[in-house]
Amino acid sequence: MRLLLNNISGLFQTEDGTATRARVYGQDMANIPSITNAWLLIEDHRIHSFGKMEDQPQSHADEVIDCTGQSVLPAWCDSHTHLVFAAPRDGEFVDRIKGLSYEEIARRGGGILNSARKLNETSEEVLYEQALHRLNAVIATGTGAIEIKSGYGLNLEGELKMLRVIRKLKENSPATIKSTFLAAHAYPIEYQNNRPAYLELIINKILPIVSGEGLADYMDVFCEKGFFDIDATAQLLEAGWKYGLKPKIHANQLHYSGGVQIGVRHNAISVDHLECVGDEEIEALKGSNTIPTLLPGAAFFLGMHYQPARKMIDAGLPVCLATDYNPGSCPSGNIPLLLSIACTQLKMTPEEAVNAVTINGAAAMELQNDLGTIKTEKKANLIITQKIPSLAYIPYDYGNNPVQKMILEGKIV
Amino acid sequence: MRLLLNNISGLFQTEDGTATRARVYGQDMANIPSITNAWLLIEDHRIHSFGKMEDQPQSHADEVIDCTGQSVLPAWCDSHTHLVFAAPRDGEFVDRIKGLSYEEIARRGGGILNSARKLNETSEEVLYEQALHRLNAVIATGTGAIEIKSGYGLNLEGELKMLRVIRKLKENSPATIKSTFLAAHAYPIEYQNNRPAYLELIINKILPIVSGEGLADYMDVFCEKGFFDIDATAQLLEAGWKYGLKPKIHANQLHYSGGVQIGVRHNAISVDHLECVGDEEIEALKGSNTIPTLLPGAAFFLGMHYQPARKMIDAGLPVCLATDYNPGSCPSGNIPLLLSIACTQLKMTPEEAVNAVTINGAAAMELQNDLGTIKTEKKANLIITQKIPSLAYIPYDYGNNPVQKMILEGKIV
Repeated sequence: MRLLLNNISGLFQTEDGTATRARVYGQDMANIPSITNAWLLIEDHRIHSFGKMEDQPQSHADEVIDCTGQSVLPAWCDSHTHLVFAAPRDGEFVDRIKGLSYEEIARRGGGILNSARKLNETSEEVLYEQALHRLNAVIATGTGAIEIKSGYGLNLEGELKMLRVIRKLKENSPATIKSTFLAAHAYPIEYQNNRPAYLELIINKILPIVSGEGLADYMDVFCEKGFFDIDATAQLLEAGWKYGLKPKIHANQLHYSGGVQIGVRHNAISVDHLECVGDEEIEALKGSNTIPTLLPGAAFFLGMHYQPARKMIDAGLPVCLATDYNPGSCPSGNIPLLLSIACTQLKMTPEEAVNAVTINGAAAMELQNDLGTIKTEKKANLIITQKIPSLAYIPYDYGNNPVQKMILEGKIV
Repeated sequence: MRLLLNNISGLFQTEDGTATRARVYGQDMANIPSITNAWLLIEDHRIHSFGKMEDQPQSHADEVIDCTGQSVLPAWCDSHTHLVFAAPRDGEFVDRIKGLSYEEIARRGGGILNSARKLNETSEEVLYEQALHRLNAVIATGTGAIEIKSGYGLNLEGELKMLRVIRKLKENSPATIKSTFLAAHAYPIEYQNNRPAYLELIINKILPIVSGEGLADYMDVFCEKGFFDIDATAQLLEAGWKYGLKPKIHANQLHYSGGVQIGVRHNAISVDHLECVGDEEIEALKGSNTIPTLLPGAAFFLGMHYQPARKMIDAGLPVCLATDYNPGSCPSGNIPLLLSIACTQLKMTPEEAVNAVTINGAAAMELQNDLGTIKTEKKANLIITQKIPSLAYIPYDYGNNPVQKMILEGKIV
């Protein structure tokens, strides 16, 4: 099956056959390689070839799509979500507007513990149907690869249930999915006065089963004051490594907690959130393999201060953006809107923001060889936009969906 | 033609037959009267009757819609937009991210003057088609009444062209539309050194024709440092009143300019923007008939500080919200997203925000007798939502469209 896209107004984030860009750093993020007036040929589920219309070779195609006035980009790679959950938390949203902090709500048994209660009362089938509905909604706004975490089970049964839902999504959705084990999301009420016992449960009981059944690609810990401290985080990450689960962790959302440093020390794929990042955190990240992933959708929704993206880009870091889609602090998985927030609030340029959710997003899920750029032999996960005048128009036109058609695994979805 | 909505999970913003609420003030904004499990009967283009399902009388209907799990609200009333424009300004968006201020861009001939150049090069037909496309897009997110301004013509021909486009939208769209004359949006380049001559042109040449052809409902002035000062504003508003055009003005976006006070003094229907509002401005508004209209979408898009909504509500003012949809400072007419910004950034509760875009939005267009609440004999401009668990879910679920179906003038659109 060969699908040909013709007369593409702007083919963005192209990569030629020889160079390999695993991620983009600092000031290089200001550039998005592109071809004006381009064609692209998909064969089966891969990108076969692409180029300028004027140089188009004769080739047979089973289907041709005319993309006059439209642009084509690699589908977004959303490297941090909690897409599987049982119920919205619109009540807490109102509590917060009225003055309660996220931490106060958590202390009262709301927050993650609220989601955990509801998740444990909800069947695997219902969780799957709800998550699939959300996944299809974010695909419609351009997402083609997504990481999804457990972390609302907080016990053996609940965590396994979540991870099985993610596995079922992997099996049934054309989106590329990575699964992360996050039992260390909050201490369950019954362990509040015996925290080491919960670590013990995770490390000695749940983790071996998760690993044995191949249910997770990564290990995550919510490293934060009031949640998992540095020592607990270190213990958990070491245990994860033993079972082959690389770390991707929550760090520095609410405090300068040392989370970034502990992540780097354990060679985390990424450290995520980063509202609280200063010179020390940036120094720790420089020269490391760990990708700093910013989640400004959560900062927007909680009305907090934003991540210092400019400072991090200027320091040469390979900044990544992800949605944090979850029912408590960011009930949105809409990447075009995330790009608008990144440009208007974090002062990232449109090119920087697009690099952050394509090539760097792919890198934060170790998918850089398969996704994140338009490259021969990479998977054909592509966005065909509405008619738009420029790349900048995507974050500029905030609140609207720039996507006209999605192609995943080479097929229009 | 009788259309019956049955099993409505929440019928919001209801008003019984005797009471009349022209607008909602201060702490009363925290309440949205509602009926759980309701029916509503539309006859022709009006609301005929409504009530609780258990009290539903026998009545013939030509069509019945089952709204189980869904809510019904009055359609949004967006009282401040610049929906008619010729081209996006995504280039300036990038300039601003890179550090230029909105005022600097304006001084360089960008901003409003950029839009004016493009508008004057664009035909009435093309302007109409583009505006209709935008209007249909905002109807799809729940807008049922909208104010649209001129102000990108900045000369006789251009201003009349814009106002004729708005008139054609009025004639052809099922949305309720109000038209505002805003020649005093910026000084054209050719008048920069002779500003009084531009006031003279507006007052003695354009205004009489606008009035004579019945092209506008309101008179607007961009009262701001670097734009129209207090004296010019006063002169323009007085001239407007002579021709029967009541004022609705731009005030206090960038500075404590005295715009609020001059608006109140001229009995403006509304003063709009209000990023810069302190005790004096609030005092001026108290006891006046002038509605304070906040445009936080522009503050979001420009990355500026937000309006002090809490302080204004606590002071007892009838706060209104509008989108400011325009190509420079707010290229979005999406009211559900505006509600999310109002709740997360201005700390308005969902009920306050909904009051601000329904009953108070209607009042800011003098449509309170016809729109803004669910009341017998009012126009049937209604939102039927997706399945949502609460009113708060609308701003909570940010980036998604809560609207499943729109009814305008009693018909599904």
